[in-house]
Amino acid sequence: MAKKKAPARKPAFSKTVEAALADLVIANRILANENVIDAFGHVSIRHPERADRYFLARSRSPEFVERGDILEFDLDSNPISPDGRTMYSERPIHGRLYKQRPDVKAVCHNHAHSLIPFGVTGGGLKPLLHVAGCIGAEVPVWDISEDFGDTDLLVTNNDMGDSLARKVSRNRTCLMRGHGAVVATHDLKSVVFVAIYLMVNAALQKEARALGTVKFLSPAEVKLTEQMNFKERSQNRAWEYWARRAGFKTAINV
Amino acid sequence: MAKKKAPARKPAFSKTVEAALADLVIANRILANENVIDAFGHVSIRHPERADRYFLARSRSPEFVERGDILEFDLDSNPISPDGRTMYSERPIHGRLYKQRPDVKAVCHNHAHSLIPFGVTGGGLKPLLHVAGCIGAEVPVWDISEDFGDTDLLVTNNDMGDSLARKVSRNRTCLMRGHGAVVATHDLKSVVFVAIYLMVNAALQKEARALGTVKFLSPAEVKLTEQMNFKERSQNRAWEYWARRAGFKTAINV
Amino acid sequence: MAKKKAPARKPAFSKTVEAALADLVIANRILANENVIDAFGHVSIRHPERADRYFLARSRSPEFVERGDILEFDLDSNPISPDGRTMYSERPIHGRLYKQRPDVKAVCHNHAHSLIPFGVTGGGLKPLLHVAGCIGAEVPVWDISEDFGDTDLLVTNNDMGDSLARKVSRNRTCLMRGHGAVVATHDLKSVVFVAIYLMVNAALQKEARALGTVKFLSPAEVKLTEQMNFKERSQNRAWEYWARRAGFKTAINV
Amino acid sequence: MAKKKAPARKPAFSKTVEAALADLVIANRILANENVIDAFGHVSIRHPERADRYFLARSRSPEFVERGDILEFDLDSNPISPDGRTMYSERPIHGRLYKQRPDVKAVCHNHAHSLIPFGVTGGGLKPLLHVAGCIGAEVPVWDISEDFGDTDLLVTNNDMGDSLARKVSRNRTCLMRGHGAVVATHDLKSVVFVAIYLMVNAALQKEARALGTVKFLSPAEVKLTEQMNFKERSQNRAWEYWARRAGFKTAINV
Repeated sequence: MAKKKAPARKPAFSKTVEAALADLVIANRILANENVIDAFGHVSIRHPERADRYFLARSRSPEFVERGDILEFDLDSNPISPDGRTMYSERPIHGRLYKQRPDVKAVCHNHAHSLIPFGVTGGGLKPLLHVAGCIGAEVPVWDISEDFGDTDLLVTNNDMGDSLARKVSRNRTCLMRGHGAVVATHDLKSVVFVAIYLMVNAALQKEARALGTVKFLSPAEVKLTEQMNFKERSQNRAWEYWARRAGFKTAINV
Repeated sequence: MAKKKAPARKPAFSKTVEAALADLVIANRILANENVIDAFGHVSIRHPERADRYFLARSRSPEFVERGDILEFDLDSNPISPDGRTMYSERPIHGRLYKQRPDVKAVCHNHAHSLIPFGVTGGGLKPLLHVAGCIGAEVPVWDISEDFGDTDLLVTNNDMGDSLARKVSRNRTCLMRGHGAVVATHDLKSVVFVAIYLMVNAALQKEARALGTVKFLSPAEVKLTEQMNFKERSQNRAWEYWARRAGFKTAINV
Repeated sequence: MAKKKAPARKPAFSKTVEAALADLVIANRILANENVIDAFGHVSIRHPERADRYFLARSRSPEFVERGDILEFDLDSNPISPDGRTMYSERPIHGRLYKQRPDVKAVCHNHAHSLIPFGVTGGGLKPLLHVAGCIGAEVPVWDISEDFGDTDLLVTNNDMGDSLARKVSRNRTCLMRGHGAVVATHDLKSVVFVAIYLMVNAALQKEARALGTVKFLSPAEVKLTEQMNFKERSQNRAWEYWARRAGFKTAINV
Repeated sequence: MAKKKAPARKPAFSKTVEAALADLVIANRILANENVIDAFGHVSIRHPERADRYFLARSRSPEFVERGDILEFDLDSNPISPDGRTMYSERPIHGRLYKQRPDVKAVCHNHAHSLIPFGVTGGGLKPLLHVAGCIGAEVPVWDISEDFGDTDLLVTNNDMGDSLARKVSRNRTCLMRGHGAVVATHDLKSVVFVAIYLMVNAALQKEARALGTVKFLSPAEVKLTEQMNFKERSQNRAWEYWARRAGFKTAINV
């Protein structure tokens, strides 16, 4: 019982870090409110001042995550200040992506429903919508059974995290067979943006296939639309939209 | 009229039983809020202290069930303290599952929309998602007309309940042709969990079939994911999520 | 402007009639809340004390209909007390069904989305779910162009209303090509029940077709399930459910 | 920062113009609430008193647009009173439609999900529902790559706006491949009406195709239903419905 209460520790984080953690709380709520995640799934950021650390909530549904739920980890996913609270068992997804990809500053793991059918039928997910250019020209599929045989499909150790991160490679997105997806980008707002439009693109691609041959974005269009998607103007307009829908009326950095 | 008011009787239930009944109210509301049930469908628990009894609400939409609506039955589905209030006509679903399956402690009968198409086309529902491993490797389909010919499809007597329970056999889930499904598990939280992910898996399997050949969970993956699904950590995280969404902010046992 | 305000007339209706009109307001709100109707569509009742009259709201979205919006009509759809307010142009749907079908006491016309695809592809809608037995063994399709050539598809005169009512014949439901559906039953609660499950059955039939050959209810099952659907117990449980969801907490006659 | 605050200027607009701008705010909120637009998309009106000007919000999600967010532009999409606030980059969609089409008084650009699959598979969207007659007998598809090669798909200059407006031609609606749609009509209420039923028709056409050969509205039915759709009675009933759903309880001009 007592194990589940937040202890009274006060970590001495800078204003920069605290501002980033306040945004991480908003990101948790946005992803829940937009149905990217349900009881499961999580989102993290790399420590803004220490490349060898990251922040992720304790084991809790993202819809209810508050500042006090956020814990600090090293890249082996050991907690910096263990306090007895339950942790997400899949934190190696985050730790190993931060380790293998220095450019990655935010990671989201989710089970958005529209992604699952693509993951169990061999993939083929590709951007067909301008706001989904940011998902990248190809979305690989990682099947945990290739390296690890029969498992409970969870990524619960660093070997599994490394295998997944290798499949993600230089991409921003990757499906996980029978499980969900991972999104890894250069900052928190973009990880939310990509996660949402990855989900939207999957739903639309499924619909479009039923109508005829799909004209996807060309490779050059993917490059140009992802530049456009990540402009501050686009990111801020979307962030304000999703944050206000999730109940945040003030303190939105746009 | 007076028949529809809750009488003033105060059954002398223990604290353990009352806590279980408080959770049963929450389960009713969760299942309504997540659209597993609408005006119809119901959820019960076996009496925590008497294996020959079970608890189920009076005939009322689960969204409105309160503590005072819950009645006690024997395994022939006779009310222990008949008080004139209308009872669900399909309570033999519950009574006979508790009778034939000593391991079953909670039962849910529902008409979740995504399940109906599988029930009327011969079945084939199988887990393809890690959180749906708990539905079991196969989901049988019970067609009431095989044993009983033309009926109104309701399970309104013990013979029908026995026939259904035989079809359920050792499984946790079973579809009912033209009608819905039944879920039978080892406790209340898991019956809610399985009912929700059975519905989700059906929706996703339908989508996946349209995209190509589906890679379902392997038999070993089903075993391993169901162990993982039923861990206290997973069950509690999901229960808190669904209960809070249904409006319960406090008194959630997690 | 003044034309759009409700005048101060106080019709001398009996308590029975006023109670029926209070329920008619609830039915309008239920159908809006369950997405059977949007800005368009309407529901009426035959006058409980005069078989040659019916009640229907002035031209207004059902979601906002209040007691003061309800007008009285004869079976030629002339208003009994014209007061200058705009009337639904399609009231002949109601008038002619009441005229040709003495057994009909309530009528709903709607454009529920799941029905439209069946209406424009030749029909074939049939009950596959026990709570949809009440839609009847066959759901005919009326195509206004057969009798009237090119029109705006609205049923705006008694000839059109007669043609539609002939197509409905002895059934409870009928699709209207490119337009929607009509539901005609023996009382108000059942017209809401049938309208909702007609919509649900259409959505499920479309899904089921994509999975394989559908086992529909047998003719005898249709008869037996419709008897069950219309039992007071079923009707009241559903009415309470939908009415409370639509915001009516009290004064529900169950 | 200061750039993002609304400055204290008070343009001397007439009562007519201010009333139109109040409705433009409502239109923004309706389109957001009905899911025609999400974080992106926008709606404008031609200046009621100057055919060479139009009104459009600053760069902001339509769900949050207020009177103070609305800016005035010439038909080359230059702001009349530049105040440093960020503007939608795609305002040439609006400017060039107003320039090429003197009959057009309102324009909506959106990315409604049901439209995207038709835009990437060559089109074929046609009215099959009476309230969708107003979308017109044919809905052309504009592919930006035909005139401009690889781009980020946004319509960010007047040449692109001219190309799109030529494709729209005399129609009210046009799909944009990989991007969304544009709707151009004779007044604000009708642009909302057409945008919503264009989205609805697309969803229904996709469903209907899966069931069989679709009977679309005949050319004469399209003409007759669009006359009916644009009657004041229909427009007002729908506007009140959508405006009240979006939270506007008063000051609705119906």
